[in-house]
Amino acid sequence: MSTPVLIVGSIALDSVETPFGKLDRAIGGAGTYSSFAAGLLAPVRLVGVIGDDFPAEALATLEARGVDLEGVKTIPGGKSFHWAGKYEYDMGSAQTLDTQLGVFGDFDPRLPASYRRTPYVFLANIQPQLQLSVLDQIESPRFTMCDTMNFWIQGARDDLLKVLSRVDMALLNDAEVRQLTGTPNLATAAQKVLDLGPKYVVVKKGEYGATLVSREGQFSLPCYPLPDVKDPTGAGDSFAGGFIGFLAWLDRTDDEAMRQALACGTVLASACVQDFSLSGLQKLDVDGLYRRYEDLQGMVDFCQLPARR
Amino acid sequence: MSTPVLIVGSIALDSVETPFGKLDRAIGGAGTYSSFAAGLLAPVRLVGVIGDDFPAEALATLEARGVDLEGVKTIPGGKSFHWAGKYEYDMGSAQTLDTQLGVFGDFDPRLPASYRRTPYVFLANIQPQLQLSVLDQIESPRFTMCDTMNFWIQGARDDLLKVLSRVDMALLNDAEVRQLTGTPNLATAAQKVLDLGPKYVVVKKGEYGATLVSREGQFSLPCYPLPDVKDPTGAGDSFAGGFIGFLAWLDRTDDEAMRQALACGTVLASACVQDFSLSGLQKLDVDGLYRRYEDLQGMVDFCQLPARR
Repeated sequence: MSTPVLIVGSIALDSVETPFGKLDRAIGGAGTYSSFAAGLLAPVRLVGVIGDDFPAEALATLEARGVDLEGVKTIPGGKSFHWAGKYEYDMGSAQTLDTQLGVFGDFDPRLPASYRRTPYVFLANIQPQLQLSVLDQIESPRFTMCDTMNFWIQGARDDLLKVLSRVDMALLNDAEVRQLTGTPNLATAAQKVLDLGPKYVVVKKGEYGATLVSREGQFSLPCYPLPDVKDPTGAGDSFAGGFIGFLAWLDRTDDEAMRQALACGTVLASACVQDFSLSGLQKLDVDGLYRRYEDLQGMVDFCQLPARR
Repeated sequence: MSTPVLIVGSIALDSVETPFGKLDRAIGGAGTYSSFAAGLLAPVRLVGVIGDDFPAEALATLEARGVDLEGVKTIPGGKSFHWAGKYEYDMGSAQTLDTQLGVFGDFDPRLPASYRRTPYVFLANIQPQLQLSVLDQIESPRFTMCDTMNFWIQGARDDLLKVLSRVDMALLNDAEVRQLTGTPNLATAAQKVLDLGPKYVVVKKGEYGATLVSREGQFSLPCYPLPDVKDPTGAGDSFAGGFIGFLAWLDRTDDEAMRQALACGTVLASACVQDFSLSGLQKLDVDGLYRRYEDLQGMVDFCQLPARR
């Protein structure tokens, strides 16, 4: 539990409404969720920006999890990134009600000197140009992965392609894989993402699980089935955090470790959606991770066919 | 390879157009696809109805596969069920262009005496009242499973509930599971289907694979990834045929066999979509089944976490 993870991403205040409740200006953001998830398994160094409206107890919650906040810049008089969204009955996707970038609009990630040699790096969903800036600042990383979104695929494609040519793994949802490659067939589309540079692509499919694809083949897991999904916000980021946190924990990036990391990401995402903000992740300890991981193994285990007659 | 399967369902002529080609009045129908898929592993007894416009060579193709046609009634002067549909670029779902029920509109499944004691029974997607009639005619089955569709969930709910209370397994897609139970959460919805009677429910998720759910837990597999999907027609029926064909082949219905059956169904569905009509299924032999089955095992295999420190 000593190899650290660097995470660069948004730190936000979210106002979320789902059929199961409502929270106003609770701690959120891709950088936050992924850091808090990774923090279960590895020390995290977080780079982001907040206004001085960001609650001190939220920062204390992150620090208590082992998240180093030297890289989090507070802008005096500034407003923290605020997102407001609502999920309907089926929880499939959020309807964004309001986005106020605040200080995040001028985010320019500057890595403290002590962060530059962090071995495991996750570039959460931010402007690809900023992801490139982070890649320029880090030295000899062992493993880098990036997230992105439809907005950048459409609007900052050239920069995004540069990012993809420089990271070890891309994390995309199924729609983004199709949009990026212009290819409806997911198997073909994932291979085309590999052509852009990364050794691995993880295709996130929401409630249908996730698939890790490399030149050598694929590895798929269902999502961890839960009757009590309260708030899907942060699921993908928690998945990412669990994934890279596990790699750092093991300090390995071979195929076997990648598969295990996908399972850990799946477990962290499942914990996230069981409650609002960071409350779901807070309820999962390492024992719980082990239990759900073993549950997942049982959910995909099947024996070989009888010998040919 | 001697325990037989009884299949009751539509035998049709399909006119299908996809971005990869077009076929006019080719052999199709749920009973046909599922019989042909099951026929790879077990002898099949098919019950259905056709007009005398149904091509003799299509019947010969089925017979050559080991499908007994004593239960297929030909109506002199009648027209076979004809479906015309088109798939757009993403192949997600078909747009129905035309449906002519023909003789299928008066289908009244009558089992030949020699069929009544068939141990494995698949009631493909037909009017629930007809599925009940078949259940009334069979004696001491070892395993029964049914398919259905949104149309019957909406329009023949009471009869469908009777069917579900009498079968061992229900085969539904994710939308149907939600519609039937009025429950968006799939994990909860699947449990509610079990409350209706069946010991197992298989939730088909198209390109996202399939999940077997029982009171004891769930088992999930991704779909078999293919770059060359030419025509999705019949995928679900081929899955069903591969599933029940495998159970008959092994003549077992324990949890281990059910998991293996799901894998075989997944493989047969993958073969189906690689070409039009029955051509895809025809290209898969038992060697190919073994290969894809082992591929699937490799796609979900991951090792346990390191011992707690």
